[in-house]
Amino acid sequence: MSGVGFPPAPPLDAAAMAAARRRWASRAEPPGALGRLEDLAVHLAGVTGRCPPPVPASPAVAVFAGDHGVVADGASAWPQAVTAAMVETMSAGGAAICTLADSIGASVTVVDVGVALPLEHLANVRHERVRPGTASIARGPAMTIAEAADAVEAGGRIAGELVETGADCLIGGDMGIGNTTAAAAIIGAACDAPAEVVTGPGAGVPAAGSAHKQQLVAIAIDRAADAAGPVELLAQIGGLEIAALAGFYVAAAGHRTLFIVDGAIACAALCVADLLSPGTAGHAIAGHCSAEPAAAVALDHLGLRPLLDLDLRLGEGTGACLAFPLVRAAAATLGQMAGLPEAP
Amino acid sequence: MSGVGFPPAPPLDAAAMAAARRRWASRAEPPGALGRLEDLAVHLAGVTGRCPPPVPASPAVAVFAGDHGVVADGASAWPQAVTAAMVETMSAGGAAICTLADSIGASVTVVDVGVALPLEHLANVRHERVRPGTASIARGPAMTIAEAADAVEAGGRIAGELVETGADCLIGGDMGIGNTTAAAAIIGAACDAPAEVVTGPGAGVPAAGSAHKQQLVAIAIDRAADAAGPVELLAQIGGLEIAALAGFYVAAAGHRTLFIVDGAIACAALCVADLLSPGTAGHAIAGHCSAEPAAAVALDHLGLRPLLDLDLRLGEGTGACLAFPLVRAAAATLGQMAGLPEAP
Repeated sequence: MSGVGFPPAPPLDAAAMAAARRRWASRAEPPGALGRLEDLAVHLAGVTGRCPPPVPASPAVAVFAGDHGVVADGASAWPQAVTAAMVETMSAGGAAICTLADSIGASVTVVDVGVALPLEHLANVRHERVRPGTASIARGPAMTIAEAADAVEAGGRIAGELVETGADCLIGGDMGIGNTTAAAAIIGAACDAPAEVVTGPGAGVPAAGSAHKQQLVAIAIDRAADAAGPVELLAQIGGLEIAALAGFYVAAAGHRTLFIVDGAIACAALCVADLLSPGTAGHAIAGHCSAEPAAAVALDHLGLRPLLDLDLRLGEGTGACLAFPLVRAAAATLGQMAGLPEAP
Repeated sequence: MSGVGFPPAPPLDAAAMAAARRRWASRAEPPGALGRLEDLAVHLAGVTGRCPPPVPASPAVAVFAGDHGVVADGASAWPQAVTAAMVETMSAGGAAICTLADSIGASVTVVDVGVALPLEHLANVRHERVRPGTASIARGPAMTIAEAADAVEAGGRIAGELVETGADCLIGGDMGIGNTTAAAAIIGAACDAPAEVVTGPGAGVPAAGSAHKQQLVAIAIDRAADAAGPVELLAQIGGLEIAALAGFYVAAAGHRTLFIVDGAIACAALCVADLLSPGTAGHAIAGHCSAEPAAAVALDHLGLRPLLDLDLRLGEGTGACLAFPLVRAAAATLGQMAGLPEAP
């Protein structure tokens, strides 16, 4: 696996899950009446190994930003400079993720793992730049294998630090003009789905049209056929933020820390994470189903059912933040609800 | 309308909604990327008449409890005494709604609007009992027209008091063994749907079987054919908690206060509310789609799309509480998100 070796994810704790199911069966409600909230609490017990699962109180968001060389080949309706501008907006608290993180009491760490324009002047940004954006996947590999491994490791390091400082639920987000092209290709390659199924409009159909974007995705999927493993896959297609997110998820699962997955870019990263460390996807909570078609393909492939379906396609971690209150509620309800009342 | 006369609901504020749409179009995101969160914020502007809409900070839950005489005719798998027992559990903080209300910072008012067993000993319960449960709809009308009107008025009074004491988002809940039978019949009558479409298992298929429950619903729907208006409909079918919830929603819309609708029983009440005061449903936020089939029939009929779909079928207001963080997030995001960045 070319320099990045991970053990499989720890298995979910079957005993804690069985205890959670038994506990639900004796709560003050008709059996199964809380539907998917019950399944969610059982999952939380499996990840954390505790029943009732602890109520997460310190969520933490990390938004990984990176640029994509394929933008020069017409992958996006937006210029590459918007990535840097949005990182600046995030660092100033003005992005949607800032409000949504705030609404759940989450910290936000904005990580430059590969933005093209200089960002050293931004004090609120974590500088972990591996390279200034990827090379265009229309012309060659997105980056070297060593660079892909570095980006994976950066994501894992940040997850580890967040867990160490008390975070009990991790949310990864993304920012990167052109990254729905890379995410579609990663998902196409990992889930064996053709470009026409995984390509969507992203942040807006590029000037050259959606057929052009689909062609770029198809080229990238073809390129991935040469990849011998997940790090090579990342090196072929990118992006740096997807690689970092993959490392972030692998580390979260390894720490038995809850993590909520966001939209299409996050789903691409989870596909890679599950290849890097098999079983990682089994720890994941799918926050929502993005309107971007690749997301549903990835979630199906990984056997995950999203909690929300709100036609979101912004990324940044926004949909995962919106799902956090359900996670908290599931744990709290199983822990606090009374047993079945006796009829008087 | 037999003693209860309501004006139509105030129209949604078209100017505030247009301003909200314009504001979204200039936020730091691709157009429409926040999907249904954007529609929700536009709706909040329409209800409150303000753009950006205020972020609700003081949600209030009122759970209306009532019994159903049809339980004596085998409508439920549970004995009627469970209603009183669950009211006691709620008043002691042990019900699911207590945890879920707490998780969103909502107060909980438990209202006995028609429980069969005495509950005067419970200090935490609001005593508004119109009668000790309805009569069996298998044998005659559930209650008198005057009683139905009293229950509607009790619900409206409680909504008014909550708004007066600062609540800015109202959530109505229900507790009543047998009430999915009444709710299915109300929805069948109001939406012109037959018993086989609206009848579900409720809290558990009754001992006499689901065909028996369906027969009871069919009898009640037939009975409703004689009803000259919504109060008569409530008198024929019940229940007291459905009547109170209908009054609660009419009052919320009249006050231009946000309200989130829960599952099948709440949806039945909203159908009645929209007949009592046309336009009330246009103010509603559909919190979730209950697994009970009547809920989807009612939501379709009223033109509402639920925010969550989590296979819940508990009632009590639980699904509406789970949707509240989305409502708060929609308002907060439209209010706080920065304008589109300029590319540097």
